[in-house]
Amino acid sequence: MSDVLYLDDLKVGQVFVSPTHALDAAQIKAFARAFDPQPFHLDEEAAAATFFKGLAASGWHTAAITMKLLASTEPGIAGGLIGAGAEISWPQATRPGDVLQVTSEILEVVPSRSRPERGMATMRSQTRNQRGEVLQILTSKLVVPRRPAG
Amino acid sequence: MSDVLYLDDLKVGQVFVSPTHALDAAQIKAFARAFDPQPFHLDEEAAAATFFKGLAASGWHTAAITMKLLASTEPGIAGGLIGAGAEISWPQATRPGDVLQVTSEILEVVPSRSRPERGMATMRSQTRNQRGEVLQILTSKLVVPRRPAG
Repeated sequence: MSDVLYLDDLKVGQVFVSPTHALDAAQIKAFARAFDPQPFHLDEEAAAATFFKGLAASGWHTAAITMKLLASTEPGIAGGLIGAGAEISWPQATRPGDVLQVTSEILEVVPSRSRPERGMATMRSQTRNQRGEVLQILTSKLVVPRRPAG
Repeated sequence: MSDVLYLDDLKVGQVFVSPTHALDAAQIKAFARAFDPQPFHLDEEAAAATFFKGLAASGWHTAAITMKLLASTEPGIAGGLIGAGAEISWPQATRPGDVLQVTSEILEVVPSRSRPERGMATMRSQTRNQRGEVLQILTSKLVVPRRPAG
């Protein structure tokens, strides 16, 4: 086995499990101040009266932590994780105290017709908390190099 | 006109334009260190030898800045911007020196059958740089309250 995976090494159904990330209220508020300064991401008391009924992480914070966990999942993809696009949903709010972990499954592997040195893999990554509740489902199209000949 | 928009105020074809955000290499690297520590987001020299051929922002950084710009677009949505899910694509890399601006268009407005107090709006947000190049296309499903009676 090599240290990194090429398109040729990816198979439909292959599963990868990430390390974990423990989230707290301070991280939620810091991300929100920078990128999503809405009351339900900034302040417990203000959040209580909103749709979320309590402090919740920005969905983009959950996405960013998911990226961090994917980037530290072994084995890595040759050339790095390069997404062309994705579908994302947040079935449940991410809360302070949640410990996030990402389980990813390869759904499709398609060599490029026009670019023989690479292809596209579709990967579904589910981000769960310590109770197994699904917080985010991300289905991404990744650009993955073919194994160089020789 | 009220200060905020309810589902009843949203019409297909309505367009909203955000303020701008100037991105530099320091911001790109800081986000990458926290959430996407891959060479092409961390270091100019290392990035030169990659798919991106130079320092590029994490797609999730572009998404987070887009969120910031959407949150500061007037008029706001009643109850805040609450996404149930989205499709996202990055047709072109976001680079140091790019000045980002988001133009959003309402694509669909659907009152909920089961929850008379709210509905779903589909919005397409295109994030462009100062040259008008499209860096990200985000199509989001937003949870939007109906205007309260009376």
